[in-house]
Amino acid sequence: MTHSIAILGASGYTGAELIRLISGHSSMRIEALGANSKAGQTIAQAFPHLRHLDLPPLVTVDEIDFSRIDLCFCALPHKTSQEVIAALPRDLKIVDLSADFRLRDPAEYEKWYGNPHAALEQQAEAVYGLTEFYREEIRAARLVAGTGCNAATGQYVLRPLISAGVIDLDEIILDLKCAVSGAGRSLKENLLHAELSEGYHAYSVGGAHRHLGEFDQEFSALAGQPVRVQFTPHLIPANRGILATTYVKGAAGAIHDTLVAAYADEPFIEVLPMGEAPSTRHIRGSNFCHIGVVADRIEGRAIVIAALDNLTKGSSGQALQNANLMLDIEETEGLMMAPLFP
Amino acid sequence: MTHSIAILGASGYTGAELIRLISGHSSMRIEALGANSKAGQTIAQAFPHLRHLDLPPLVTVDEIDFSRIDLCFCALPHKTSQEVIAALPRDLKIVDLSADFRLRDPAEYEKWYGNPHAALEQQAEAVYGLTEFYREEIRAARLVAGTGCNAATGQYVLRPLISAGVIDLDEIILDLKCAVSGAGRSLKENLLHAELSEGYHAYSVGGAHRHLGEFDQEFSALAGQPVRVQFTPHLIPANRGILATTYVKGAAGAIHDTLVAAYADEPFIEVLPMGEAPSTRHIRGSNFCHIGVVADRIEGRAIVIAALDNLTKGSSGQALQNANLMLDIEETEGLMMAPLFP
Amino acid sequence: MTHSIAILGASGYTGAELIRLISGHSSMRIEALGANSKAGQTIAQAFPHLRHLDLPPLVTVDEIDFSRIDLCFCALPHKTSQEVIAALPRDLKIVDLSADFRLRDPAEYEKWYGNPHAALEQQAEAVYGLTEFYREEIRAARLVAGTGCNAATGQYVLRPLISAGVIDLDEIILDLKCAVSGAGRSLKENLLHAELSEGYHAYSVGGAHRHLGEFDQEFSALAGQPVRVQFTPHLIPANRGILATTYVKGAAGAIHDTLVAAYADEPFIEVLPMGEAPSTRHIRGSNFCHIGVVADRIEGRAIVIAALDNLTKGSSGQALQNANLMLDIEETEGLMMAPLFP
Amino acid sequence: MTHSIAILGASGYTGAELIRLISGHSSMRIEALGANSKAGQTIAQAFPHLRHLDLPPLVTVDEIDFSRIDLCFCALPHKTSQEVIAALPRDLKIVDLSADFRLRDPAEYEKWYGNPHAALEQQAEAVYGLTEFYREEIRAARLVAGTGCNAATGQYVLRPLISAGVIDLDEIILDLKCAVSGAGRSLKENLLHAELSEGYHAYSVGGAHRHLGEFDQEFSALAGQPVRVQFTPHLIPANRGILATTYVKGAAGAIHDTLVAAYADEPFIEVLPMGEAPSTRHIRGSNFCHIGVVADRIEGRAIVIAALDNLTKGSSGQALQNANLMLDIEETEGLMMAPLFP
Repeated sequence: MTHSIAILGASGYTGAELIRLISGHSSMRIEALGANSKAGQTIAQAFPHLRHLDLPPLVTVDEIDFSRIDLCFCALPHKTSQEVIAALPRDLKIVDLSADFRLRDPAEYEKWYGNPHAALEQQAEAVYGLTEFYREEIRAARLVAGTGCNAATGQYVLRPLISAGVIDLDEIILDLKCAVSGAGRSLKENLLHAELSEGYHAYSVGGAHRHLGEFDQEFSALAGQPVRVQFTPHLIPANRGILATTYVKGAAGAIHDTLVAAYADEPFIEVLPMGEAPSTRHIRGSNFCHIGVVADRIEGRAIVIAALDNLTKGSSGQALQNANLMLDIEETEGLMMAPLFP
Repeated sequence: MTHSIAILGASGYTGAELIRLISGHSSMRIEALGANSKAGQTIAQAFPHLRHLDLPPLVTVDEIDFSRIDLCFCALPHKTSQEVIAALPRDLKIVDLSADFRLRDPAEYEKWYGNPHAALEQQAEAVYGLTEFYREEIRAARLVAGTGCNAATGQYVLRPLISAGVIDLDEIILDLKCAVSGAGRSLKENLLHAELSEGYHAYSVGGAHRHLGEFDQEFSALAGQPVRVQFTPHLIPANRGILATTYVKGAAGAIHDTLVAAYADEPFIEVLPMGEAPSTRHIRGSNFCHIGVVADRIEGRAIVIAALDNLTKGSSGQALQNANLMLDIEETEGLMMAPLFP
Repeated sequence: MTHSIAILGASGYTGAELIRLISGHSSMRIEALGANSKAGQTIAQAFPHLRHLDLPPLVTVDEIDFSRIDLCFCALPHKTSQEVIAALPRDLKIVDLSADFRLRDPAEYEKWYGNPHAALEQQAEAVYGLTEFYREEIRAARLVAGTGCNAATGQYVLRPLISAGVIDLDEIILDLKCAVSGAGRSLKENLLHAELSEGYHAYSVGGAHRHLGEFDQEFSALAGQPVRVQFTPHLIPANRGILATTYVKGAAGAIHDTLVAAYADEPFIEVLPMGEAPSTRHIRGSNFCHIGVVADRIEGRAIVIAALDNLTKGSSGQALQNANLMLDIEETEGLMMAPLFP
Repeated sequence: MTHSIAILGASGYTGAELIRLISGHSSMRIEALGANSKAGQTIAQAFPHLRHLDLPPLVTVDEIDFSRIDLCFCALPHKTSQEVIAALPRDLKIVDLSADFRLRDPAEYEKWYGNPHAALEQQAEAVYGLTEFYREEIRAARLVAGTGCNAATGQYVLRPLISAGVIDLDEIILDLKCAVSGAGRSLKENLLHAELSEGYHAYSVGGAHRHLGEFDQEFSALAGQPVRVQFTPHLIPANRGILATTYVKGAAGAIHDTLVAAYADEPFIEVLPMGEAPSTRHIRGSNFCHIGVVADRIEGRAIVIAALDNLTKGSSGQALQNANLMLDIEETEGLMMAPLFP
């Protein structure tokens, strides 16, 4: 059985990544590609790397007949996404990749994003899309909210440790190194090759990054008490990858054991042997996440490092994994391709 | 039916690329991985990006039981390859990725590679592996010689034009821009990130590059007269990609028509609309080759530009395409993945 | 004696490069920095890398008192430049870095740039700024037109060869590899790190690049007959550098001798020993140009390759060299810094 | 007055950087360049980017007449350096860039470097070369031990804070992002462009990096009690730069005030306005260090970030600054060049 798929926001990087992944999927067919700013273009014009594919041209969202669609991916900018989704059929399965439905508390949403939420009804039914931890809810969901790519990486490190009670909840530091595709296709001076190449820097320092809203929500719920972490992202001159260096207090051995146990049956999460550290070059273009644990020389402290591809496991790969669940397809379908190295 | 595969030289870049591609192939199973210098290592040690795969450990070539192997890829350095292949069973199907069996004339081999050939018997039976032009010979072959990655790129541009007689054979200039993985995993100062990043240069200038042996052999045979081209490769600070800018004399329209017709039924060669130029970013990690034709402002001259991924279409992807033919598998199996962009 | 300098268009890359160079100059003091779009910003805000310098804030051009200025650099976009310069005092020494005053024939200007020239009077008095070939005119000039960075590189290769009559004028091919800072600080998708890094491509193929106007003008004047070259630029994933691979017909020995003789007394042009090829990594951040000559395997053909830094020798360094001449300062002052490697 | 200079280990990156800097110095002349492995080469052969300079050829150390040398830079590998220096004249002024004379306690040296020290006498007289904090000792020294590049960066952040008592000494985390030239010109797979470009990772995780020896020595001495920090370096796909993200507990305002006061008169240390974060792109190729302070959202915690060029301020620039002091030259001579951006 082949499922009919629509992608809204098809001309951005996560849209292109969805098309790449779905082009290798055995039971999905792309029926519609919505991209208002580039409507009328063929896929070869918008994305020359996809010119070999037989795909419909880009259209405006209004032109799409959703009655023929089994599942819709929304890869639109936040705020736009909630407005568009509010107008879609109420029974359409949706995987949203924006930030709009990640935070359950509308006040938290407004605090981090600066505007009142415009689709409160849909927000109430949205399921948080971190597959490994919300699998059953996602399977039953109509609307799944894809997580932030940084938020996913940090949670893969910390959720099992918080649940198992093996780390100090007051002393968690996440130092992230993020590749530039995570910033999307927006035209900003600091994303130009001439500015970013050969240079790197921290941004949203000190607790200003919006993905903290997700960390606060999820970690506090898990711990049953307010948990606040320190989180500093850095922009790195590479195209794909997030490396999360996490500083925690706890016994490294127990931490490693906990992660090994938590992910033993997960197809995409690989916990490295004790003492090894992952590299972004080893997950590029794939849906895998590598996690390593190293004891610090100071007793009772450990460094846990996770690496994943922000566009795949951190975004479009996660979205496809969730869509597979929602459509009752094998969860790993279309997602087992090996990383691209070198 | 599943075919048993061995890869010799598994610890280099083309070896890793073969494993990546075969991991997504529906009817091949890797039975043996030969890598003398890293024998004893697991795949996770040699290539952490492949740690999710269930693969045999690296062994020496001597340890492999070839009676269980249906087809063997040799991704060894040239000169080593001929010595190893000379000692392999005479009925074993082999796809060689080295330079050792590309040149039919042993004198030409010695001229370009500096040593007498050590496996003349096998050389005599080898079929040149440029799939689109030797398809039937490859299907029937026991030993296929993979082409040089630069040689493949140049031939995709020029073979149809030479055959059709639409260009001046005395005035062909190939200016190639090659990414660094084409130089392999060898430890040389000029391949260090600190030397290559932010710098680029020509090498083997003036007719010194060994792939000229292939151009001379193939173009002369095709034209029925000696054809010698100018060919200057440049090392570019990127990991994957070859961009061949070809300067020819002929009518741009006829050139474009010729290429469109030649590749109309080819699954991996995409001829762009007249006047468009390809980019390496649009073929990365894929088996596709994009070709564009632009008329020069000077009447009777044209620029033809081809882009492909040196590790995929230029090497390991080509090898797998040929292996599919030799094993009577669908030619495109395992090779239709979309390029990775960005 | 210290000369008072103004820079208009100070917030772009060539503006920043001028400030960098002048900060090491013994007898220039920057009095005014014009940058309409960022007027009001301090230099630390516009260019954090220059925060250690004691410089005036950015202002609009209107706010500058030019009576206090000895020489003004205009690093504005073309078309804007001619409008601004038309309104500047008629006795102010000006070095313009835009394309506006490079072409002597207004019809040629309109052909390549698409609009009628708005400062014909100034255009008539402008001197073409290729220092090594217009030194005396520049010394006496009021208004000097900086050359295109590609145009400079190609001319360093070809002018002596055309003058000496050692190459065939009908068969000249310039294949250029250009780093991205040459495209300026403009916000375009194809200049984003995620698009350009790991990818490269030709642009303005077939004779569409505006710097051809300069080649046509200069080479034809030099030869005393119309000369038209083929010129294809390629965008390379690096920040600084132009590598010009030039294919000519002529005797390699005579070509090398001609270049050695032509540049024997030039402080910034280094002709490499016969058979060596230059690299952009060896001129980065400097005012030097390296030129190499290699004979092709085909008798009577040669490859001449030049490398320079587009922002320094190709633009702001050239501008400062010309300003030194105009102000009767030692020509090399502020320009002898060694390249940055690695 | 011109001072005669020798550089030992002239064919590595720090050697090349010393030559670059000294080529712009008003009162130093390079008399001898020692480089055993490349002895006999001209500078144009070893470093084509320095071909415009009039320099002596590379020779073995034995060939150098040190009686004519006023000051010798040793840019040799550690362990080699102590052996060479032990054999040099006892009255020769030396700036050593290796790790050999940084640790005062021979037991600490042996612990971190794995071998007993072979030049204990010289070690006893060596002065630690962090200019801003050992200025007077350096002025009077015969032998100065250049600091580790990571060690310098961390100390610029932490020394004033430890001295002022404004941070918790038990809770200091240094997360460093290091460009690849810091690893030197050694031939290792993980330094190849194809491996490092587009990938990044932590190394020496958990307290294994040798620069911790310097942190322990210096911070403990400063605090008058044992201080141990956490320190995790990461290898980043860039050529030059160290970005040190430092997590401390203390009042951000007091921390910023302390740093502003500490560096108010320093020519090379720029403390950014409160809340701003530095970038490596803004110090590249220069001797400047930029430091920023941001308060975390969690009360009582702050992030302090420093950026410098590992080859300049972190190594060869520091060495020249110290040599200026030792030779009674203006401390900033040859070091005020602006960073290279873009």
